[in-house]
Amino acid sequence: MEGFNFHTDVTVRFAETDAQGVAHNAAYLVWFEVARIDYLARYAEGYKHIQEQGYEALTIESHVRYLKPVHFDDRLVIHARCGDIRGARFRYEYAVTRDGELVADGWTQHAVVDAKSLRPARFPAWLAEAVANAEA
Amino acid sequence: MEGFNFHTDVTVRFAETDAQGVAHNAAYLVWFEVARIDYLARYAEGYKHIQEQGYEALTIESHVRYLKPVHFDDRLVIHARCGDIRGARFRYEYAVTRDGELVADGWTQHAVVDAKSLRPARFPAWLAEAVANAEA
Amino acid sequence: MEGFNFHTDVTVRFAETDAQGVAHNAAYLVWFEVARIDYLARYAEGYKHIQEQGYEALTIESHVRYLKPVHFDDRLVIHARCGDIRGARFRYEYAVTRDGELVADGWTQHAVVDAKSLRPARFPAWLAEAVANAEA
Amino acid sequence: MEGFNFHTDVTVRFAETDAQGVAHNAAYLVWFEVARIDYLARYAEGYKHIQEQGYEALTIESHVRYLKPVHFDDRLVIHARCGDIRGARFRYEYAVTRDGELVADGWTQHAVVDAKSLRPARFPAWLAEAVANAEA
Repeated sequence: MEGFNFHTDVTVRFAETDAQGVAHNAAYLVWFEVARIDYLARYAEGYKHIQEQGYEALTIESHVRYLKPVHFDDRLVIHARCGDIRGARFRYEYAVTRDGELVADGWTQHAVVDAKSLRPARFPAWLAEAVANAEA
Repeated sequence: MEGFNFHTDVTVRFAETDAQGVAHNAAYLVWFEVARIDYLARYAEGYKHIQEQGYEALTIESHVRYLKPVHFDDRLVIHARCGDIRGARFRYEYAVTRDGELVADGWTQHAVVDAKSLRPARFPAWLAEAVANAEA
Repeated sequence: MEGFNFHTDVTVRFAETDAQGVAHNAAYLVWFEVARIDYLARYAEGYKHIQEQGYEALTIESHVRYLKPVHFDDRLVIHARCGDIRGARFRYEYAVTRDGELVADGWTQHAVVDAKSLRPARFPAWLAEAVANAEA
Repeated sequence: MEGFNFHTDVTVRFAETDAQGVAHNAAYLVWFEVARIDYLARYAEGYKHIQEQGYEALTIESHVRYLKPVHFDDRLVIHARCGDIRGARFRYEYAVTRDGELVADGWTQHAVVDAKSLRPARFPAWLAEAVANAEA
């Protein structure tokens, strides 16, 4: 998808559908997270590496637009890009496509915190660089 | 909570926590839904009544701000109000408090659709009135 | 329910349904957990107290029989009893009723472990007594 | 894994962990379902095909043994086999491995029902054959 440097694939699980016959609105936040984890595995040695360095990334804001219903067993592509790093904060943007058609989009905002105190920490330089390189 | 005419109580389930030791970000959308369902039960004879009339309400947009981490077994109050009804669309706003302190807020946007075709339907007058009375 | 000394109430959430229009089979394990937590709050000062004493209880086995489908907004009663304490292990049994009719039952087996090492610990005497008193 | 003719891969999602730092016990039932769906896609033209023929498969019993805790980002292999077809009922057995080590196992029992009435239906011959061939 134009403007996105990364994507990961997700198939809608039966457990993620609801009695309307479509994927439940909360499932999209789980898929966004799956994309973030895969993104960090590709560009920043993985979330576990970040944790081992003593950091956690908290989700502090989320936004989803549900443009088309998606159904059980649909193959979705979750496009993701990370940017807008400011101090301890960073932002991911997402576009969800099915057969090339945009079915949802959204963004999440995160804060890097010290893993023990859960207090804000400076965004580690190595992580900022890794993410910046991903953008190149 | 000032400006809110309705609230429902939720206790954070262990299954809703994650390995950061806090409630997962997707759980808030489930709590918002619990509040909507309770709201409709109070003011509009319940969601099942809406379904029996041949309607469904799709979630078309969601927004959450996670202000303070919440933990297993925390007693939360989900404040909700419904408004901004335009054609087939309506909006809920939420504030989540714990011991009187605001820990999250957000909103969801919905579209009334025909239950069979999932195509947009006019917002039923009786439902609009019920919701409007709730606001009074 | 005969033979059960405790129950807790659960209303089926929309997010817990699936595209078959019934509650998803995994949701029952979450409801069993809700009942265990409420049970421990009543008889053993709560799960947090157990954690503060340096223990965790791991789930090591689960079994569910789904006798009747349950639907969105159904009011369920989760009956629970704890017993069969042997060394570090204990067992919960459950019966799920709707309007007095049995719709599911099951059991879970647990091991008390040291919270830090996750290694088996002796079942604390005070917890065994609390649970035994509950049985009385 | 010996005795299993099929497997599918699952990576533990962050959303599937809980505050004990391990995958929640209900997540295993979701993974079992993912394996069933993949199994039917391989051997019986997929679950959607079964639905299009007017059938649904209800889960009527489940059993899980949690042998070793699994953690965020663990790569799991869900081994599955289907068998013991009797009338409208069939059974799946599962073994979950991580790096070749057994970390959980279990089984689920299912009933084929008419998709509209949710009443028991005869197990379709073509489905029984498909599954039997898988066993070969």
